[in-house]
Amino acid sequence: MTLTHDRAIEAARGVAAVLAKDALERDRANAEPLAEAQLLRDAGLPALLLPTSVGGDGLGWATALRVVREIAVADGSIAQLLGYHYVNVANLWWVGGLERWGPPSAAGQWLWGDAVNPTDPDLELVPDGSGYRLNGRKSFATGVSVGDASVVSGTAEGEPLLVVVRGDAPGLVRGGDWDNLGQRLSASGSVRFTDVAIGPDQVLGGLGEDAATPRSSLVTPAIQAVFGAFYLGVAQGALGTARDYTRTTSRPWILSDSPSAAADPYVLATYGRLVAATRAVEALADAVAGHLDRADAAGDALTWEARGELAEQVAALKVVSTDVALDVTNTIFEVTGARATSNAVGLDRFWRNVRTHTLHDPVAYKRREVGDHFLNGTHPPFTLYT
Amino acid sequence: MTLTHDRAIEAARGVAAVLAKDALERDRANAEPLAEAQLLRDAGLPALLLPTSVGGDGLGWATALRVVREIAVADGSIAQLLGYHYVNVANLWWVGGLERWGPPSAAGQWLWGDAVNPTDPDLELVPDGSGYRLNGRKSFATGVSVGDASVVSGTAEGEPLLVVVRGDAPGLVRGGDWDNLGQRLSASGSVRFTDVAIGPDQVLGGLGEDAATPRSSLVTPAIQAVFGAFYLGVAQGALGTARDYTRTTSRPWILSDSPSAAADPYVLATYGRLVAATRAVEALADAVAGHLDRADAAGDALTWEARGELAEQVAALKVVSTDVALDVTNTIFEVTGARATSNAVGLDRFWRNVRTHTLHDPVAYKRREVGDHFLNGTHPPFTLYT
Amino acid sequence: MTLTHDRAIEAARGVAAVLAKDALERDRANAEPLAEAQLLRDAGLPALLLPTSVGGDGLGWATALRVVREIAVADGSIAQLLGYHYVNVANLWWVGGLERWGPPSAAGQWLWGDAVNPTDPDLELVPDGSGYRLNGRKSFATGVSVGDASVVSGTAEGEPLLVVVRGDAPGLVRGGDWDNLGQRLSASGSVRFTDVAIGPDQVLGGLGEDAATPRSSLVTPAIQAVFGAFYLGVAQGALGTARDYTRTTSRPWILSDSPSAAADPYVLATYGRLVAATRAVEALADAVAGHLDRADAAGDALTWEARGELAEQVAALKVVSTDVALDVTNTIFEVTGARATSNAVGLDRFWRNVRTHTLHDPVAYKRREVGDHFLNGTHPPFTLYT
Amino acid sequence: MTLTHDRAIEAARGVAAVLAKDALERDRANAEPLAEAQLLRDAGLPALLLPTSVGGDGLGWATALRVVREIAVADGSIAQLLGYHYVNVANLWWVGGLERWGPPSAAGQWLWGDAVNPTDPDLELVPDGSGYRLNGRKSFATGVSVGDASVVSGTAEGEPLLVVVRGDAPGLVRGGDWDNLGQRLSASGSVRFTDVAIGPDQVLGGLGEDAATPRSSLVTPAIQAVFGAFYLGVAQGALGTARDYTRTTSRPWILSDSPSAAADPYVLATYGRLVAATRAVEALADAVAGHLDRADAAGDALTWEARGELAEQVAALKVVSTDVALDVTNTIFEVTGARATSNAVGLDRFWRNVRTHTLHDPVAYKRREVGDHFLNGTHPPFTLYT
Repeated sequence: MTLTHDRAIEAARGVAAVLAKDALERDRANAEPLAEAQLLRDAGLPALLLPTSVGGDGLGWATALRVVREIAVADGSIAQLLGYHYVNVANLWWVGGLERWGPPSAAGQWLWGDAVNPTDPDLELVPDGSGYRLNGRKSFATGVSVGDASVVSGTAEGEPLLVVVRGDAPGLVRGGDWDNLGQRLSASGSVRFTDVAIGPDQVLGGLGEDAATPRSSLVTPAIQAVFGAFYLGVAQGALGTARDYTRTTSRPWILSDSPSAAADPYVLATYGRLVAATRAVEALADAVAGHLDRADAAGDALTWEARGELAEQVAALKVVSTDVALDVTNTIFEVTGARATSNAVGLDRFWRNVRTHTLHDPVAYKRREVGDHFLNGTHPPFTLYT
Repeated sequence: MTLTHDRAIEAARGVAAVLAKDALERDRANAEPLAEAQLLRDAGLPALLLPTSVGGDGLGWATALRVVREIAVADGSIAQLLGYHYVNVANLWWVGGLERWGPPSAAGQWLWGDAVNPTDPDLELVPDGSGYRLNGRKSFATGVSVGDASVVSGTAEGEPLLVVVRGDAPGLVRGGDWDNLGQRLSASGSVRFTDVAIGPDQVLGGLGEDAATPRSSLVTPAIQAVFGAFYLGVAQGALGTARDYTRTTSRPWILSDSPSAAADPYVLATYGRLVAATRAVEALADAVAGHLDRADAAGDALTWEARGELAEQVAALKVVSTDVALDVTNTIFEVTGARATSNAVGLDRFWRNVRTHTLHDPVAYKRREVGDHFLNGTHPPFTLYT
Repeated sequence: MTLTHDRAIEAARGVAAVLAKDALERDRANAEPLAEAQLLRDAGLPALLLPTSVGGDGLGWATALRVVREIAVADGSIAQLLGYHYVNVANLWWVGGLERWGPPSAAGQWLWGDAVNPTDPDLELVPDGSGYRLNGRKSFATGVSVGDASVVSGTAEGEPLLVVVRGDAPGLVRGGDWDNLGQRLSASGSVRFTDVAIGPDQVLGGLGEDAATPRSSLVTPAIQAVFGAFYLGVAQGALGTARDYTRTTSRPWILSDSPSAAADPYVLATYGRLVAATRAVEALADAVAGHLDRADAAGDALTWEARGELAEQVAALKVVSTDVALDVTNTIFEVTGARATSNAVGLDRFWRNVRTHTLHDPVAYKRREVGDHFLNGTHPPFTLYT
Repeated sequence: MTLTHDRAIEAARGVAAVLAKDALERDRANAEPLAEAQLLRDAGLPALLLPTSVGGDGLGWATALRVVREIAVADGSIAQLLGYHYVNVANLWWVGGLERWGPPSAAGQWLWGDAVNPTDPDLELVPDGSGYRLNGRKSFATGVSVGDASVVSGTAEGEPLLVVVRGDAPGLVRGGDWDNLGQRLSASGSVRFTDVAIGPDQVLGGLGEDAATPRSSLVTPAIQAVFGAFYLGVAQGALGTARDYTRTTSRPWILSDSPSAAADPYVLATYGRLVAATRAVEALADAVAGHLDRADAAGDALTWEARGELAEQVAALKVVSTDVALDVTNTIFEVTGARATSNAVGLDRFWRNVRTHTLHDPVAYKRREVGDHFLNGTHPPFTLYT
């Protein structure tokens, strides 16, 4: 059944409802999210962004980012996994390879991981026959450990190339070493490639910072828009979970005149402050999603100027979603009370998730980027962070 | 010439450009904004919200609120004057009187003031022939002193009525007593009515908190949406004015390695923080304007539930626009520097404007309202503040 | 060897150095802090506040609170354990029992726990011979599980009494059920008393909110001052631990011009902001400690007025130490970077500790208390929270 | 009558009470503070820091800074005038000239201004006979316009010298051009020197950044400690003035259940937040004053290390006093209400004062300084800002 925007959101909520049931237990178990990945596939979510020409649902970023947000309400890790997937798979039309990899990806509801982290040394692509041999290690490689395929950046004779590696490729070894404070089920451990064979059809194209086009460089605003979406979703999930607790379990403070915690003036105003701030971020996230849709639809006609304006809006979203998500996830304890710190409640997982991932790149430098654009009209050069 | 959305914004920017030239001098002179009101009329802005059936432009709240914001970039006072006008005139279709008062209002580009402040004692409407005699005083009556007409709430035999008073009505005396920290040109002084004759055609209808319908009660979310629009506009005006100063006049700090103030890392990040926060509020303001348009278009079909959802979104906008506007207008000094405190620069007028008007009703109670809705699903009863 | 102020601090630092070595591992193991309690005893810290007349060191609160802070730099849980002990043992002179219990306490470096939490139902003291039988349960009873003795509040024929229960008393059963987000080694689990025999010499005196004297009611400002001391210590510990990480392990951001993370302008300013704020809290903590010393030294001459002024200063300390400790422990991640979220680093334990304990009583109500005093000159009635 | 610490504070409060009566009117009149300067002299405050050997009261910085704070509660401008004076006069023992200038200064209760602003071009000292001729302009010269004498830095043959200029010196022309947002009575306008004769006894000594000793470089931490003292005083004045208004004039919000504004839960908690934060800054200010006293008393034995530690504490005070004073003076409107924005109330003068002076040097660079010390153990090189 082809997904529509509304059906996709409904499907996402269905997945979220399942994930919510044992989010805390799964978080603590810290296993590879194999079952969770299968839930996403079963709901038909991975292919929604693929063009109908290759069998996808042909939906846009407004849908994809909203789906990521809905999943994040229940489980930030799985939202990250899916959000990264959407950006990874979009490389098939931004860089190349859609005809070759689009059909099986759509038909099989493939999840795509990536191994592109630029703060690690480059992976090496050594020519070998008509293809290459891939070697090296990336210390963070979200989705590779559960993905059906991954986009991998390597360097071939000094030139950066983006290639495809299947999940079962000989020579691909997952580190299984992701044991961090939050986003524990995001399959973000390291990966090592040892003489992995790369055939010519696995080369998607060049993706260097020099060779980039406005279109191929959409990878950065897109992934940063994903961040905004799931930080927002985690904040919304935290608020909703806190609300349930306040209503059902919190007790009014002994010095309060209020008959219940849910009637306490400070509890009410604190919720109001957090909800209002979250709503503003939600509005910006919606606006940014529309902007990304238009940029993606522009295709090769996209200009650097338009790409820069998009990037700046996305950077603003990164800044405010970070601030709000940290504020919400830290503050919910003040409206639930001391007993909500019991590990049986596990209310800290929201903070752990946003505290961990918001460090992906320093928010101070995003503020700088937004300020530089406002003050000096600059657009930052394309990097995997700007 | 009939205005379109785009033409209206262009016209508003034209007015703003004129207002910007001597905003500071006019602020200090604290005169009645007669010339400014005429600028609005000459630009054709007052009639844009009136239906085409009575000769207006038939545009919606998305346009009206955007126009208010554009004016506020240059002059918060005149933005308040115009924003209040839009809400005042909308009573003609929310409460009544459109057929009688719409045509002259559209033809003459009337500006409408109001005398409804509920924290003052009620005005008295004493039956007199087929109409009433109006007596009493309101201590804040935005727009009455320069308006062509005003909506006035009074009590007739215990029942609240909304009536029209023309600007030149005998017995209407303006106090000329508005000398406050900010919004100094908003024509917000007191007004006294002494035996003002009210004919039957001047009675728009009832507007009591008991008698209200979802539609007639739109007055509160509409006026609060106006607040959000002009707080946002003032913040944007403050940022733009500061930017000019930083670029042209500020000097890099002597301990900075940067060649210019506009390259200083702290200056950049501070601008970025403020711009990002302002952008989120802008996105929410846009979303709220659309919501208000839909509610207004629903007419008598509007439900209390839908009105309540709108009110809650508007309350969220009030909260975040207040926070951001105060933060921006207080902080711009840190990115312009010590010399920018010279009264020749007058950079404080932005703070004075938002600091003054954001106290219209306590933001703490708006936070409470948002929190109560989120936590308990409540919609506040209709008042002129909720 | 008798402790002096300086020697006590030196001893505390020695204990802290030992605790720091495996603070993270012990936190995760969540065992009863038996070895840690012994470290405190071996260092001679428990008896420092006891008068020399019973064999203690006769030191004051300035020393005790500073010792608590020094311990908290390494381990917030053990600081809580020791801080609560100091307040518990002070009941021997505030309420009674010093002659009977002071000498063994000093000679044995006893640690005192407590079971007084007023949000639980009262414990029952049923007359039995010349003493009582104690029955009931307290859900949080810091220190009882490792204490040599505990102060326990119960109700005897409607009157509140404070009694002593030895750690090995038959009928005392520890719940071993403290599994919370933070302060995991603070021995704060529940305790159940089943027919515990209370001899006449175990009755310290009355401690009802009605029967309290200024002196006996010092228990609340004293315990709240302990809170301030260990929140401050945890913040200092977090800053010191982050500093080590930034200097040795963090890498400069790829978009930074700085040669090292420790030279990055945003890293520097963020540390500066946090350190400056922490220093102000430290100054207030020092001032409050002196104030508490003077109030304690006043003995029976202490007036309600003086007690009230002390309580208000302590409330202010509670407010600012809470704010700063949450800010510091949440923000250190931004100056250490993404890799610092690895669970091998465990930098979250500081946030977990303050996030957990600062909910002991809602900081909103402490703000209210400070505001009410400032605005209306009130002193709150004595409760175990005010 | 010789002043003691307590008498000095009492005298300061007496002056403050007089200044408070018409602080707003004087602020608006923007005249030279001649009468205010005389009030300070009549109270005997200018000479309190001078050694008894020259006829002063021999009091220390703890007194001087407390006096500055007490004055600032009523009038930030006059507090600045007096605070700068204390630092200016201290150059007589830090740099030289005490024997020559101390006795008349003490006997006449001289107020000392300064013309040292390093962001202007240097003043020129051209040798002339046994002395110099002084030429040039300083754009900010606090106190020169009302001072009995001023310390003036100029350059003589490439060497920086500190010289004395009497208030009635021929060739000294005040600009009378200080018309800024705040601190309007601080006598901070420009000054021009045209062939002002400087005799040999008017040369205090060298004060270059190269030639400085730990002792002579105390000028920077001392003046920054003065800043902290008067920001704190202004914040306290704002709180006290707001309190009076809330208690006597504010009305409870119409949606509040409270019988008075002074009982409203949000009003109480907001006051509490501000008061608690102010109290922490007060404690730090007290600690810093003691530290400065010890450093000054050390005389030539003061080390660069000790001077650096002092400077770092003072920088922390600058940071937190700036933050708190801005927060307090901006927020008091929220606890007084809309009517408190009337210019008849003038509640904005507190914000204007701190907003203006806190820009003296960017607080971001003070945060950086504190962070650099904490992280890297650095002490900044001596400048007139560090």
